[in-house]
Amino acid sequence: MSDNSFGTLFRVTTWGESHGPAIGCVIDGCPPGIALSEADIQPWLDRRRPGQSKFTTQRQEADQVRILSGVFEGRTTGTPISLMIDNTDQRSKDYSDIALRYRPGHADVTYDLKYGHRDYRGGGRSSARETACRVAAGGVARRVIAELLGEEAQIRAALVQVGGLAIDRSRWDWDEVLRNPLFCPDPITAIEWEGLLSSVRKDGSSIGALVEVVAENFPAGLGAPLYGKLDADIASGLMGINGVKAVEIGEGFGVAALRGEENADPMRMHDGVLHFEGNRAGGILGGISTGQPITARFAIKPTSSILVPVPSVNRHGENIDVMTKGRHDPCIGIRAVPVAEAMMACILVDHLLRDHAQNSWHRNRG
Amino acid sequence: MSDNSFGTLFRVTTWGESHGPAIGCVIDGCPPGIALSEADIQPWLDRRRPGQSKFTTQRQEADQVRILSGVFEGRTTGTPISLMIDNTDQRSKDYSDIALRYRPGHADVTYDLKYGHRDYRGGGRSSARETACRVAAGGVARRVIAELLGEEAQIRAALVQVGGLAIDRSRWDWDEVLRNPLFCPDPITAIEWEGLLSSVRKDGSSIGALVEVVAENFPAGLGAPLYGKLDADIASGLMGINGVKAVEIGEGFGVAALRGEENADPMRMHDGVLHFEGNRAGGILGGISTGQPITARFAIKPTSSILVPVPSVNRHGENIDVMTKGRHDPCIGIRAVPVAEAMMACILVDHLLRDHAQNSWHRNRG
Amino acid sequence: MSDNSFGTLFRVTTWGESHGPAIGCVIDGCPPGIALSEADIQPWLDRRRPGQSKFTTQRQEADQVRILSGVFEGRTTGTPISLMIDNTDQRSKDYSDIALRYRPGHADVTYDLKYGHRDYRGGGRSSARETACRVAAGGVARRVIAELLGEEAQIRAALVQVGGLAIDRSRWDWDEVLRNPLFCPDPITAIEWEGLLSSVRKDGSSIGALVEVVAENFPAGLGAPLYGKLDADIASGLMGINGVKAVEIGEGFGVAALRGEENADPMRMHDGVLHFEGNRAGGILGGISTGQPITARFAIKPTSSILVPVPSVNRHGENIDVMTKGRHDPCIGIRAVPVAEAMMACILVDHLLRDHAQNSWHRNRG
Amino acid sequence: MSDNSFGTLFRVTTWGESHGPAIGCVIDGCPPGIALSEADIQPWLDRRRPGQSKFTTQRQEADQVRILSGVFEGRTTGTPISLMIDNTDQRSKDYSDIALRYRPGHADVTYDLKYGHRDYRGGGRSSARETACRVAAGGVARRVIAELLGEEAQIRAALVQVGGLAIDRSRWDWDEVLRNPLFCPDPITAIEWEGLLSSVRKDGSSIGALVEVVAENFPAGLGAPLYGKLDADIASGLMGINGVKAVEIGEGFGVAALRGEENADPMRMHDGVLHFEGNRAGGILGGISTGQPITARFAIKPTSSILVPVPSVNRHGENIDVMTKGRHDPCIGIRAVPVAEAMMACILVDHLLRDHAQNSWHRNRG
Repeated sequence: MSDNSFGTLFRVTTWGESHGPAIGCVIDGCPPGIALSEADIQPWLDRRRPGQSKFTTQRQEADQVRILSGVFEGRTTGTPISLMIDNTDQRSKDYSDIALRYRPGHADVTYDLKYGHRDYRGGGRSSARETACRVAAGGVARRVIAELLGEEAQIRAALVQVGGLAIDRSRWDWDEVLRNPLFCPDPITAIEWEGLLSSVRKDGSSIGALVEVVAENFPAGLGAPLYGKLDADIASGLMGINGVKAVEIGEGFGVAALRGEENADPMRMHDGVLHFEGNRAGGILGGISTGQPITARFAIKPTSSILVPVPSVNRHGENIDVMTKGRHDPCIGIRAVPVAEAMMACILVDHLLRDHAQNSWHRNRG
Repeated sequence: MSDNSFGTLFRVTTWGESHGPAIGCVIDGCPPGIALSEADIQPWLDRRRPGQSKFTTQRQEADQVRILSGVFEGRTTGTPISLMIDNTDQRSKDYSDIALRYRPGHADVTYDLKYGHRDYRGGGRSSARETACRVAAGGVARRVIAELLGEEAQIRAALVQVGGLAIDRSRWDWDEVLRNPLFCPDPITAIEWEGLLSSVRKDGSSIGALVEVVAENFPAGLGAPLYGKLDADIASGLMGINGVKAVEIGEGFGVAALRGEENADPMRMHDGVLHFEGNRAGGILGGISTGQPITARFAIKPTSSILVPVPSVNRHGENIDVMTKGRHDPCIGIRAVPVAEAMMACILVDHLLRDHAQNSWHRNRG
Repeated sequence: MSDNSFGTLFRVTTWGESHGPAIGCVIDGCPPGIALSEADIQPWLDRRRPGQSKFTTQRQEADQVRILSGVFEGRTTGTPISLMIDNTDQRSKDYSDIALRYRPGHADVTYDLKYGHRDYRGGGRSSARETACRVAAGGVARRVIAELLGEEAQIRAALVQVGGLAIDRSRWDWDEVLRNPLFCPDPITAIEWEGLLSSVRKDGSSIGALVEVVAENFPAGLGAPLYGKLDADIASGLMGINGVKAVEIGEGFGVAALRGEENADPMRMHDGVLHFEGNRAGGILGGISTGQPITARFAIKPTSSILVPVPSVNRHGENIDVMTKGRHDPCIGIRAVPVAEAMMACILVDHLLRDHAQNSWHRNRG
Repeated sequence: MSDNSFGTLFRVTTWGESHGPAIGCVIDGCPPGIALSEADIQPWLDRRRPGQSKFTTQRQEADQVRILSGVFEGRTTGTPISLMIDNTDQRSKDYSDIALRYRPGHADVTYDLKYGHRDYRGGGRSSARETACRVAAGGVARRVIAELLGEEAQIRAALVQVGGLAIDRSRWDWDEVLRNPLFCPDPITAIEWEGLLSSVRKDGSSIGALVEVVAENFPAGLGAPLYGKLDADIASGLMGINGVKAVEIGEGFGVAALRGEENADPMRMHDGVLHFEGNRAGGILGGISTGQPITARFAIKPTSSILVPVPSVNRHGENIDVMTKGRHDPCIGIRAVPVAEAMMACILVDHLLRDHAQNSWHRNRG
């Protein structure tokens, strides 16, 4: 058990606070012989990095990752991979007036109730800054996927709704996601979102969003019965991203309104290969992957750091109003996109190794 | 790591298939000195037991639980509690015509792709029958909660939507949940559901549903940062219930459409006690409980076992149509209600022990 | 974490007390497709069964194992294997006069100090009766080894010292171990031990012993760096057997007196195959198996249940003298022999799966 | 599961190789509010640091520890504590002639057989340099012990045998351990060892040793049944130290020759307090601490890096002779002394938290 680790065979432990000297993670269980350098990880961090558009926090972080162990002569050794990212733009003083105040919607009050202290430096351990470590780990997981499954196995995410504005799925274009700073797969909606976000920002407010993540060309058989279900692990992984309040797989909440014959994806053989005619299951049946695209969606709340005053209390037990100055994302859903991809990559590598440990024996025999 | 276990300090391992001689579970880590007998567990199993109305499977199971270890002279000893329930109504022959066929929407095909065999006896390990073990474990967890936190700490669930028909929340009455076989908190909607379910059953079909679970009067501080978040564990636990495709906490998917000032629950001191004016957070901030009611909802798909033929394939790789005879629940959402309560009880006990291990020291000092 | 489980990928959870209705275990993570029936497990239990000679407890237990789950049509399914053994000869009354007394050398007092209760029924959970579950699990592990590695991979143990009488290693004959009830590999020493044990038994006393366990024809590469070392796991597994106070690998305590050139096993290529000229390392270097025989030895204390009075206290805090009537092993080292084999089998299967998960990829490529 | 982690509630994950840029560890689960700074950890590292006498490697490492996270305003926060130590004296070229050679007695060959590569830089991950991380973690564990149990709870280790020369236990003086560079509790034997070690060093050889570790004034009740036994965890922890081949608790291997009445420590009440008249059990009965001193001993092999040529092979499969130049400890047992203390400290804190989680409830009630 470790509150700051996830995964079982591909196990990631993260450490570090928003305003300490550095953050980082240790990856244990990575197969040896995988080509890996900082250049494989940095591009994913760059995607997540703040300050790239006016719609994310203006905090300036280089987010340069260093590999401190586990790689020798350009390949993983099978021993722990330690990754570190220095915190370069800390500006602790931005937070000094908030030292004794609990920001509503933030974890300030629950951390204090649990641990008996108040780390006022930008959220401390509960800051979204920690997600940089997950993205770095995801970069390693992607290299494992590429070497074990080939380049066709890929994981992509996109922002699909901001506030009340959803994309038009008929215009979905994955290449578009790479082109706009909002990770929007629909160029027309992207423009509408820019208007909405500018307005939200001007109001000193923030807004919620919906993110979708898809993993394609992964093998059938990943996941495990009951308490090792792939969808349960995805639910846990995505719900654990800062600000997430809901997760769904495939048809998701829509299944409540369906009848059995509408929901069950029909199967047919095509040229000797099993084919599903539909994917309401989101690529997972009984907790185990079917070989179809694995699809998940999650809702992320509006940033609680806003310039609008909200009633709150302080450590002395006095009623106050809190408004949070400083540099914040008006829509944390944007930067959650690369984080979701990274979590999915780590979870899938973990299940790939777990399934392989138990089941490659009969497959090799069969 | 164990695919058939959950929890860390209050750890439940379940075993058994739908049509084997018995099913059961082992609970490790239960505190000693807790009064416990079969009579504390049986009522919860009775609530979940099939055959209690025409809206659940007509399979007849006594579901009598036996405590085989871990209790001495009426109290837990701190050693593993082994619970066993005999399978009495197996009727394997009901399933004989399905032996080589993959039922669409079921885990038949993924279990075969993973493990290389087809347990045609009613779903084997992936049958919802396994959930009886969780309900039994939940009965033990409830005793722990009662002794450690007192009777006011309680966990209740209800069915809140069947197909397209949602309850009217203004009529919510917890006592009503105990009165009708559909666990519906709204007596008027309950009657509408009976009509809908009769129609669905007559069509040989099934229907999806939505369940809500609420835990009240639990302390603040449960949960842990990042990968031990209480909401992530709840998401994992509920998503792992058979047929669940979506989970949300508090405001859930609704947060996507909100602004920051709408979403953050204001705080105020009342008579020296911290009070939240709103609970969109569902009782959890930053993965840690606030002391408010912990609220979660999940969507459960329509049973895939229906009398309507659906295109499928068999183990020989031939295209066939499958319709599933036998005794099935037209709405598995109904019997998921006691299962959800049990999962929540086990998860909360686990986090109670985890938080206590690390944090009771400074609280005792403070 | 689970105090009553061991292993990570091949995970065994045991339950049950000496004088409850039954004992048992759940094995999670066994590969599917392994041929398995009760007949594969029962012979190992029969070897450990009490009452087979005058040198073990006269308690009569059939020790009949039943497989309750995880096997279908004669093969493992990949889901949990539940094994149960009824307690048939409990005779609780033998222990009634000891109910409030702490037997010196037993765990009575520490269980009470920890858990706050006294399970006076023959030691409860701390009774050596629990080791029957390990032997049953070992029977499953042996089937996995046979199917994955072939019959030449074998694990055998023997008693090598009783009291001050050690075997003559020049007379070592593994077949002899199967012939005498003392699991002695040296027929001449076996006769001397019979005399010693008869004398010890007549005195109402007991005596310590030394057990050796050897695993041959296992592949190189099992084990893992630092906190997953094969020798550390063997040390933990053997030290966890009731009454064990010391464990050594290979040369063991003897290394303290050696110089570097004496201790390092030389290596040479023979016909293109790496060969070690010596095995002081006991088949393990840096925590990882070399492919040589894996050898371990452990010391087990004399049974604390003796007819000789020893000063003690009772639950009321009064000084008393305790002598333990009832049916006890004069030398628990004898029945530890099959237990040690079983632990070694489970540990090696676990490491086989762990190594395979991470390292079969590069081996398949190489 | 994590091959590079140990502990469950006080969980330590280490990373780094002998000749990479740095080594470090992450401690998860430390209670919050514990006063902690680098100054609490550095003295323990200084004790272990190489180059302090002519009897340890002449490698010069400052071994300066930095706390990168988990401490705020001088106290632990309950979140992960990341510790880092730069490698300053790497001199990779010392090892260049050994790049393709397997050093006998080292893990070179097993790492290659497992992971398919040869990290020739001074042993890479299997180097004893990693033990600096354990000592740093032990420094944190000692702070936890001091705040939770008070200063009287202490853990001390000493070297008790080098080659064939054992100390005279009648001259045991703990203060002496702090005075001589060999951590010897007997000043007269210390002088004899100096002579022996000088001779060994002149021969280009090395020598084995025996270490003893004692934990005093820890509460009864630590440890858990069967697979969470305190002695099993100590056995695992000590056997996992580089070069250790044997571990014993209390009377250890000596129990093999004892009779029951000799081995069972008598109990008596003294002034209302339970008192053991003897400690052959080494402070542990049934895997659970008695409250007496916890005593363990382990044997550590002679360094395999010697100037005496030993037959070996290289990666090309050719027979060669290997002698290891460079800077090495003639007796690695010396620097294992602070490592053993650190492992014991971490293990005891872990069990303290585990026991507290489950058992403080009934104790508080009682």
